Amino acid sequence: MADLVLIGTAKARPFRNVWMLEELQVPYTLRPEIPRSPEVLAMNRSGKVPILKHGNFIMTESAAINTYLADAFRGHVPELVPPAGSQLRGRYEELVSCIITELDAQGLWIHRKHEAMKQFFGHIPEAVQHAQQHFCNTVNILLAQLREVGDYLLGNFSAADILLVHCLDWAGVIKWLPSTSIESELQPVLEQYLERCHKRDAYQRAVAQRKAKL
Amino acid sequence: MADLVLIGTAKARPFRNVWMLEELQVPYTLRPEIPRSPEVLAMNRSGKVPILKHGNFIMTESAAINTYLADAFRGHVPELVPPAGSQLRGRYEELVSCIITELDAQGLWIHRKHEAMKQFFGHIPEAVQHAQQHFCNTVNILLAQLREVGDYLLGNFSAADILLVHCLDWAGVIKWLPSTSIESELQPVLEQYLERCHKRDAYQRAVAQRKAKL
Repeated sequence: MADLVLIGTAKARPFRNVWMLEELQVPYTLRPEIPRSPEVLAMNRSGKVPILKHGNFIMTESAAINTYLADAFRGHVPELVPPAGSQLRGRYEELVSCIITELDAQGLWIHRKHEAMKQFFGHIPEAVQHAQQHFCNTVNILLAQLREVGDYLLGNFSAADILLVHCLDWAGVIKWLPSTSIESELQPVLEQYLERCHKRDAYQRAVAQRKAKL
Repeated sequence: MADLVLIGTAKARPFRNVWMLEELQVPYTLRPEIPRSPEVLAMNRSGKVPILKHGNFIMTESAAINTYLADAFRGHVPELVPPAGSQLRGRYEELVSCIITELDAQGLWIHRKHEAMKQFFGHIPEAVQHAQQHFCNTVNILLAQLREVGDYLLGNFSAADILLVHCLDWAGVIKWLPSTSIESELQPVLEQYLERCHKRDAYQRAVAQRKAKL
């Protein structure tokens, strides 16, 4: 097995990969780097983290990294992404696409750009307000689906839950959650889901990394 | 093989799936529906298209649908998504994530929300201006990578090219491209890439569907 190195700060999106690696229980090194550091820019011209090094292979994008890891270590560890070719894999791909575009890029990241880092990107409260409402609408849709399926988005725990919980945690930090925009009958679904996922040993180990590192 | 039905208008994101299905040369039906129609809302609470029906299986999200189709019909047709577990598949997942979050959600879709459909979402020119710059910055990064690799993003033509070309075409329609924000030495890379992809028979057949249908 080639060496796995994750580059980035566990305080931001790379947390998703730290949690994944802790679930997989494969040996890895977390090399703390902030976005746009010289080392990061040398590997990823966009300056974004995380970056995964798997031997000589280098890749970026947190959700893509988790899908790659599950496929690369299939059979070796708990299966956190359904096998390619199955309908469940289709549902996984659909959830990932929805979470990274609707919740993250069109929701949380607009807050990041136009509120939290407004000194760099400009302060645009109307855009942020719209993003917050869109975030909550999408969370309602996902929670209604979750209620139908069971404890986790795909039935069993998967990398899709890692993405969703990270986005929900992030929304908590910026006070988008709890919110009266979450439908009242879905509030307990949300609370119980977060409690269930936060209790996982791998999540706890990832949180410990976040506290210890850059 | 179960019946394939694609629901949505080929004038918007479902074009990506029409093109994919034409590349795969599998039989399918395109059922024209606009977003938020009663039939669409019954299958997808978000009201978005495309929706794919494959027998009894229903899924959404244009990029995810193309990945699913490639995996579901692997071996049967040209391989447009690398097999799961390979590094090339990791690169594919990375490209999809980058294109749907940076180019589409954080770029084109902000124009859609806050300019093209401003009567519904509010007119926010500063957010659109920022999105346009971000779009061009990301196109520069992808074109520089393309120049290193060859004719297509993964070397051979793939579903990642379908996504990228659709976003570049969309940018042309809203006059974000051509743009002086594209680095001058990358301008011919962009032009030749588009010409190469637009010449494909499957692209031409998809364009014919776009003209003929809703």
